[in-house]
Amino acid sequence: MQVPRIDGERLWRSLEEMAKIGATPEGGCDRQALTDADREARDLFRSWCVEAGLSVEIDDMGCMYAHRPGRRSDLPPVALGSHLDTQPNGGRFDGPLGVLAALEVVRTLNDHGIETERGIVVVNWTNEEGCRFAPAMLASGVFAGVFDREWAHDRRDREGRRFGDELERIGYRGAVPCRARNWRCHFELHIEQGPVLESEGRVIGVVTGAQGTRWYDAQLVGRASHAGTTPMDRRRDALAGAAEAMVALERMARAVPDAVATVGTLTALPGSRNVVPGEVRFSVDIRHPDDATADRLEEAFAGELAQIAARRGLGHAFERIWAFPALRFDPECIAAVRAAAEAEGLPFREMVSGAGHDSCYVVRVVPTSMIFVPCREGLSHNPGEWCEPEHAAAGCQVLLRAALTMATA
Amino acid sequence: MQVPRIDGERLWRSLEEMAKIGATPEGGCDRQALTDADREARDLFRSWCVEAGLSVEIDDMGCMYAHRPGRRSDLPPVALGSHLDTQPNGGRFDGPLGVLAALEVVRTLNDHGIETERGIVVVNWTNEEGCRFAPAMLASGVFAGVFDREWAHDRRDREGRRFGDELERIGYRGAVPCRARNWRCHFELHIEQGPVLESEGRVIGVVTGAQGTRWYDAQLVGRASHAGTTPMDRRRDALAGAAEAMVALERMARAVPDAVATVGTLTALPGSRNVVPGEVRFSVDIRHPDDATADRLEEAFAGELAQIAARRGLGHAFERIWAFPALRFDPECIAAVRAAAEAEGLPFREMVSGAGHDSCYVVRVVPTSMIFVPCREGLSHNPGEWCEPEHAAAGCQVLLRAALTMATA
Repeated sequence: MQVPRIDGERLWRSLEEMAKIGATPEGGCDRQALTDADREARDLFRSWCVEAGLSVEIDDMGCMYAHRPGRRSDLPPVALGSHLDTQPNGGRFDGPLGVLAALEVVRTLNDHGIETERGIVVVNWTNEEGCRFAPAMLASGVFAGVFDREWAHDRRDREGRRFGDELERIGYRGAVPCRARNWRCHFELHIEQGPVLESEGRVIGVVTGAQGTRWYDAQLVGRASHAGTTPMDRRRDALAGAAEAMVALERMARAVPDAVATVGTLTALPGSRNVVPGEVRFSVDIRHPDDATADRLEEAFAGELAQIAARRGLGHAFERIWAFPALRFDPECIAAVRAAAEAEGLPFREMVSGAGHDSCYVVRVVPTSMIFVPCREGLSHNPGEWCEPEHAAAGCQVLLRAALTMATA
Repeated sequence: MQVPRIDGERLWRSLEEMAKIGATPEGGCDRQALTDADREARDLFRSWCVEAGLSVEIDDMGCMYAHRPGRRSDLPPVALGSHLDTQPNGGRFDGPLGVLAALEVVRTLNDHGIETERGIVVVNWTNEEGCRFAPAMLASGVFAGVFDREWAHDRRDREGRRFGDELERIGYRGAVPCRARNWRCHFELHIEQGPVLESEGRVIGVVTGAQGTRWYDAQLVGRASHAGTTPMDRRRDALAGAAEAMVALERMARAVPDAVATVGTLTALPGSRNVVPGEVRFSVDIRHPDDATADRLEEAFAGELAQIAARRGLGHAFERIWAFPALRFDPECIAAVRAAAEAEGLPFREMVSGAGHDSCYVVRVVPTSMIFVPCREGLSHNPGEWCEPEHAAAGCQVLLRAALTMATA
């Protein structure tokens, strides 16, 4: 098979054009789901799809499916997708790269007059970020049957506006139900959002699966008391206990290969500089590619927290509030991506996604895998998020090859 | 000298009556300085003073001086005072005990027709707490020449209302300037606000001085990054660094006898459960009865923080934002309190105040010392603050004896 070259400059121009919508002063994007900026981004994407000769279908979660027919309309098509919504203080690549690279694949096929056996579908998944309407990956979750559609429509933002109403308001509530489609496979190109590819000088991540993620709420309760009059040995200092627990968590996670553990939020009460904190609440995020290993880390930390609390006379709680099991992507899809990277002569490595993506739900109902490209210093969810143009193009080229491999009959 | 017994029940009734003003549902008081509740408390106190035959003078910081003449109007009188204002979620004893016990001393002298050589002045210091108008001990600070009067009048609360305007509004801006008065001495009875007396089964604290207090702002700056995609060894986690610093601070303070160190407030940014914190700010409060020892603890912690930051690739700052030097109370006043406790046969100990009090400023211009009584579990600045009636009475009795000792010519 003669594989054409994608047009890296056209892809870059599309990324730049898209980044103008919801652009922030620091060079990033604020294009949260179902805002006016999201509508504008969707309108632009739709106009580009129409220009490329695609027919655009919208489902009742606002997901956009842009179809390029294949020779065999009886065969399930190949889907290539990601998301156009961003974090409130997000970057230009997290999401849009995957959608616009998929569009570039179609444009390239058009340029070269290449007809594929199977059709190609370019997908924009609604509300991947979940920052305005929690949870994340809402529409792909409905697609995969993880979430109920009515429940999803009832999600509300901080101002109390319903997801369903906002979808209606921006004119992107389609008639066709969001549910699993009969696709041959689904590929998603995405920036790594971590530092591994860059630091190893590799261009392509062949993503074999995603880590399991668990979220916990931890609490320590002591007694608020006067910072000046309470001797050290009479204190029940919830924050000192939390500090000890955080040091232990970091030590334990470092001791387990491939594990990560994070305390991202912490609240010390009453929060006065001359009062010993009587209560602390903090979040814990534990991830590992293997669920059994994550289980062991969870248990070990829970035990350590209990011991710290007992030794300090503190009450404690540790509750798992959410979990996403570790998952493996589809072996045939992984092989197609790997072969594509090899054929392109690009330095690659297999890796496990540390973050959640629409593909993590889609894989439940459609054979799926992902392609990662480096981003500068691993920065993401940040206006400084950056992907080198040649890396964006390389990822797009691998996406094209993998798509062509799977688009045969 | 035949010393009469104070009336513990009358003192208790007065405390209960006063506690109704600004009473909170949990049994505490919210009677912040220069609020309507403060005015009501002042009006009640004034009416009691007038009933007791005292003449009430008010200065231009709102401090109230209720005079009971002595035989010798040419000799400086003995002052007994504390404050009627409370924390927003405060108790019934922190402040009012000292003011109403002073009033009870006068009532007892009246009951027994005792005339003293020197006059007695019962004092209500304005805005000891500083929770509405920072800083604390504002009026006693002006009295002692630490703060400028105009600057004090310009302090604003969160709604932007000026101290001077609010003082005017509640009708307690007197004409006479707030400044040092020619007093023989000043005694202040107060709850300990710590657990030492209660746990040792002692009733009287002979307060010999006050700890030095230093406040610091600490900051660690790393890099915010994705909790799932940033390997443990690639993180610059500001909160993990702060946890290590807090553990070190606690360990260092425990190793120095009589030292206390507290992290009361901590803010982790950006504050998202799946983002490694890129910045942490926290407060540090270090106290010791000896300034040189506090200096050494400060230096040692600053060095430790710098090392932790360097090892973790974090930026750091550690700034002293406020300091109150350690101080000794007046030896003659201390001796009078000690002798009074001995004469009353009350179990006592010498101790150093862990908290700040009006007496800590007044001692700069008038020979001063304090008397502590136990409070339940050391609780203060809390609606659960509690002083047993017999301890309140015992403290009042010691106050009476010490006052009589000093009120001789």
